[in-house]
Amino acid sequence: MDPRIREHAEIIANHSVDLEAGDNVVVDAHPVAEDLVVALHEVIGDRGANPITTSQRTGKRQQRAYLRAAGDGGEARGASENASGETASVEFDTPEHELALIENTDVYIAIRASDNVTQTSDVDPETQSAYQQAQRPILEERLSKRWCLTQFPAPANAQLAEMSTEGYENFVWDAVNKDWEAQRDHQEHMVELMDPAEEIRIKSGDETDVTMSIDGNPTINDHGEHNLPGGEVFTAPQPDSVEGEVLFDMPLYHQGREITDVYLEFEGGEVVQHSAAKNEAVLTEVLNTDDGARRLGELGIGMNRDIDRFTYNMLFDEKMGDTVHMAVGRAYDDTVGEGNEANDSAVHVDMIVDMSEDSFIEIDGEIVQRDGTFRFEENEV
Amino acid sequence: MDPRIREHAEIIANHSVDLEAGDNVVVDAHPVAEDLVVALHEVIGDRGANPITTSQRTGKRQQRAYLRAAGDGGEARGASENASGETASVEFDTPEHELALIENTDVYIAIRASDNVTQTSDVDPETQSAYQQAQRPILEERLSKRWCLTQFPAPANAQLAEMSTEGYENFVWDAVNKDWEAQRDHQEHMVELMDPAEEIRIKSGDETDVTMSIDGNPTINDHGEHNLPGGEVFTAPQPDSVEGEVLFDMPLYHQGREITDVYLEFEGGEVVQHSAAKNEAVLTEVLNTDDGARRLGELGIGMNRDIDRFTYNMLFDEKMGDTVHMAVGRAYDDTVGEGNEANDSAVHVDMIVDMSEDSFIEIDGEIVQRDGTFRFEENEV
Repeated sequence: MDPRIREHAEIIANHSVDLEAGDNVVVDAHPVAEDLVVALHEVIGDRGANPITTSQRTGKRQQRAYLRAAGDGGEARGASENASGETASVEFDTPEHELALIENTDVYIAIRASDNVTQTSDVDPETQSAYQQAQRPILEERLSKRWCLTQFPAPANAQLAEMSTEGYENFVWDAVNKDWEAQRDHQEHMVELMDPAEEIRIKSGDETDVTMSIDGNPTINDHGEHNLPGGEVFTAPQPDSVEGEVLFDMPLYHQGREITDVYLEFEGGEVVQHSAAKNEAVLTEVLNTDDGARRLGELGIGMNRDIDRFTYNMLFDEKMGDTVHMAVGRAYDDTVGEGNEANDSAVHVDMIVDMSEDSFIEIDGEIVQRDGTFRFEENEV
Repeated sequence: MDPRIREHAEIIANHSVDLEAGDNVVVDAHPVAEDLVVALHEVIGDRGANPITTSQRTGKRQQRAYLRAAGDGGEARGASENASGETASVEFDTPEHELALIENTDVYIAIRASDNVTQTSDVDPETQSAYQQAQRPILEERLSKRWCLTQFPAPANAQLAEMSTEGYENFVWDAVNKDWEAQRDHQEHMVELMDPAEEIRIKSGDETDVTMSIDGNPTINDHGEHNLPGGEVFTAPQPDSVEGEVLFDMPLYHQGREITDVYLEFEGGEVVQHSAAKNEAVLTEVLNTDDGARRLGELGIGMNRDIDRFTYNMLFDEKMGDTVHMAVGRAYDDTVGEGNEANDSAVHVDMIVDMSEDSFIEIDGEIVQRDGTFRFEENEV
């Protein structure tokens, strides 16, 4: 086994989830990530913890089969024809057994890896949204645990990144197996600027100019705990405060489909207009999931300079230096200050703005980053 | 996808586990069985049930890594040196999250399939036994559900059977995708003989002559429900009643190791002498698991004539015509009559006697099968 895989497993256990004796651990992974699953089992065995492996989040071929069949055979789920003769959307239960598993878990480790990243591209987006809605209590439970989302460099993920498999392996393990203490210190400069701030403005090119209040909401220093790789600082906007427009000029993959050039216009925090160059229907479906899906739940600043290229993978892309990302949907609990409103939704979909040129970030009227360079980096030089 | 895989999935759902809308389903499978997992997800989606996929029982490479690490790093599990300076055996917890998953499950489907059937051959048998002991409450829960154990014809399983992959696929699907009503009727003849019986005697060659009481214990007609393929009738001996000796002249695989020519001598139901030509230590470990591991929990009569060859796979071998099998360890609840003692153990290990030559089965003094031919079959001719 490549020694970097065992190093990866050790970082997950020691740095990301702080594995302890007696911990009940869920490892969710696609079979292409088997080497990392095996390396994790060595660590879990060594520490006296208890593993179970699932492929619930990552077994996309089976999920596709399940969702398509559920969508077609809707009668069993109480779908019925509505007044205009269309079949109403399918409904899903929240599976009690899956919920019980997570409720009794201490540590949840999700390994991203796929043998085909477009596996669910022919599942009806409405069916996917309904499924995600039913999965929400399970997501809530997972987020209440010590959890980590990481990546295994499978060939299909390399292909998505337009890289050779070996090149992509180097990219992933360079980004993952690193000195997370040093990264934390670098990011702490930005936390110190954002944490006490009231208003933040993101300006890029002609099409992005948006302001939002982050007053009272803590800024989190993501240095490889919940996300591995980490490398961003992030907080939650006040749900009603977002005003302006954003062109997310970097593409994203959602439910196996590429969405490009997402444009959102905000009034009073709500998305009042939207468009996308490709797969706009998928974007529309996301925004229609629930009320919270039309508001921002996250603002993040990418600060990991070891992630030096865009790889069509949000786990990496959002950490890239010279980028800013915003997510519609659910806000993370720890980014919402006491007494502040938390945006609530079944979804959390990140989208990225390139800040490397003709761009700035302004905090309470002061520019803290211009064209990708932070003020404190100028001072560091 | 081979259409026989979808047929297999339909038989599991309709015949074996009686799948209903709203059922919470666990599918446990190794990735080599992915096609059957996908076909099952189609059926589960269609019927309005809720799936989760695990590889707990079948993910042997990760289990090996876990058990070896747990065995080595025993300190975390409270292992300590005993008086003679040897490290005492490792102890395991019963994982609460895995238990909670099964407790909240209606249907449990385990798919046997492997990419290397000897994957756990270098795990210390004592560690495996300790792990199995801790897993026992989970096994109990599974057996209290609608459950099915079946086989996917993976190449490594074909290799174990000494068959080509395609030949083995034909063998498996011929045995699985068949008329289970007809098979049930054939077997019912033997149930009618065994169900009211008091004593049964198995005699084969010079080395096997054993008697046991099955008085008051129901005989079950296994026609493809818990086991797919099915094809046996079985009951539980009274735990104290077994007298005599048995040479199990067909080999078995346990914990990744082949055990051959198992010889057991019984007194008052208990194994008082044992030997094996190959891997006797593994047999010894099994018998030492707990008190119940030294007594029989099952007597079964193989009656599936479509299983026409020995394939080193108990799920099939024990159903072969012209064979009898006995299991040390746990008795199945439904084979123990009210007021009768049920043999209790963390293990259940089946072993087979060839009955095709120089053999007979005697029930209450009457011979019901000689050299593999049942009395009622002679009548049928």
